[in-house]
Amino acid sequence: MREVFHQSLEDVQNRLVEIAELVTVAIDGATRAFSTSDVTLAEEVIEADRIIDEKAVALDELAIEILARQQPVARDLRIVVTALRVSASLERMGDMAEHIAQLARSRFPERAIPKGLKGTFKRMGELDVSVARKLTELLRTEDLRLAEEIRNDDDAIDELHVSVFEKVLGDNWKGEAMATVDATLASRYHERFADHAESVAKKVVYLATGDWSADPQTLEAFAE
Amino acid sequence: MREVFHQSLEDVQNRLVEIAELVTVAIDGATRAFSTSDVTLAEEVIEADRIIDEKAVALDELAIEILARQQPVARDLRIVVTALRVSASLERMGDMAEHIAQLARSRFPERAIPKGLKGTFKRMGELDVSVARKLTELLRTEDLRLAEEIRNDDDAIDELHVSVFEKVLGDNWKGEAMATVDATLASRYHERFADHAESVAKKVVYLATGDWSADPQTLEAFAE
Repeated sequence: MREVFHQSLEDVQNRLVEIAELVTVAIDGATRAFSTSDVTLAEEVIEADRIIDEKAVALDELAIEILARQQPVARDLRIVVTALRVSASLERMGDMAEHIAQLARSRFPERAIPKGLKGTFKRMGELDVSVARKLTELLRTEDLRLAEEIRNDDDAIDELHVSVFEKVLGDNWKGEAMATVDATLASRYHERFADHAESVAKKVVYLATGDWSADPQTLEAFAE
Repeated sequence: MREVFHQSLEDVQNRLVEIAELVTVAIDGATRAFSTSDVTLAEEVIEADRIIDEKAVALDELAIEILARQQPVARDLRIVVTALRVSASLERMGDMAEHIAQLARSRFPERAIPKGLKGTFKRMGELDVSVARKLTELLRTEDLRLAEEIRNDDDAIDELHVSVFEKVLGDNWKGEAMATVDATLASRYHERFADHAESVAKKVVYLATGDWSADPQTLEAFAE
C-alpha cells in the first residue's frame, strides 16, 4: 500500500512535468507559426491543445483521489495541493498558445504580425518559450533559482507588452483596425502566458519549501 | 474538536461566498465606471481588488491547513478541494473588473467606450454583473440550475464578444487606434470574466454532486 502511494505521488509530479512539456511544445509551435504564417503548424498546435486540457482534468482527478484515499501529509500533501492549484494555470498557458496559433491561422495567407512589430513579437515569443522550458525544469528539479529567472523574464515580457501599446497608440502607427486588433490580442496572449508561468512558479516555491510565507505572492499581498 | 472542524468547513464555504460577493461589487462598479467615465468609482474598484487578492490567498491557506490537520473525507473534502480549485478563478474575476476600471480611468475625462459600441458594452456589463450574482448564489445554495443559467449567460457574452470584432473589423469602423485597442481589451475582459465564472460554476457542480463525471468540462474534454 505504501509503495502504491508513493508511486501515485511520483505520478502526480511526473504528470505536472509532462503537461509543462506539452505546453512548451505548444508555445514553441505557436510562436513559430505566428512569425512565419505556417498554417499547418498552427493547426497542429490548435489540435494538440485538447490533449493538454484532458491531461489537466485527469491530473485533478488523480489528485482528488489521492486526497480521498490516502490522506497524505507534509510534503506529500503539498505535492497534491500544488497539482490542484497549478493545473488550471498550465491549461490556460496551453490556451494562450492555441490563441496565438488561431491568430496565425485566421490571417493566413497574410502575416498575422503587424508591420513594425516583428522584432517585438519575435522577442516576446522567444521569452515565452524560454519561460515554458524553465517552468518544466523547475517542476522537475525544484531548483528555485529558476523561479527567480521566470519572474525576471516575466518582467521583460511585461515591458515588451507596454511597448506594443506605445507603438500602436503612437503618432506613427499606420496600421488598419485589423493590425491594431492583432497586435493588441497577440501581445496580451504572450503576456498572459508568462503571467501564468510566474504564478505556477510561485506555487512551486511553496511546494519545495513548505514555507507558505516564502510564496512571494503572499508576501506581496500582505505587504501592500 | 469535531465542532471546530465543522466550523472551519463552514468558514471555507462562507469565505467562498464572501469573495464572490466582493467580485460582484467589483464588476458592478467597474462596468458603471466604464460606461459613465466615473474615475472616482474606477479608483475604488482598483483599490478594492487588493482585498479580493488577500482573501483568495487566505482561503488557500485555510484550505491547506484543514487538509493537513483534519484529513477530511467525502463532502468535507470536496468543499476544501473546491476552494483550492476556484480561488484563483475568483481572484482573476476581480482582476478583470480591475482592468475594466483601469481602462475607464486611463481614458478619463474621455469616454473609454468607443463610439457605436455603447449598447454592446452596456449589455456585456449587465450580463457580467448578473453572472457574478448568480455565481454568489450558486456558491451559497448549490442550486445547480444557476450553473446552467451561468453557462447560457456566458454563451450570450461570447456572442457579444464576437460582435465587437465584427464591428471593429467592419468597413464602417472609423475608430482610431485607441478606440480599437479599447474595444478589443474591454471586450476581452468582459468575456474572460464570464468564462471564469462558468469554470467556477462547473466545479461547484462537482462539489454539490460529488460526481466528477457530472462536471461538464470533464464530459466535454473526453467527448471531443
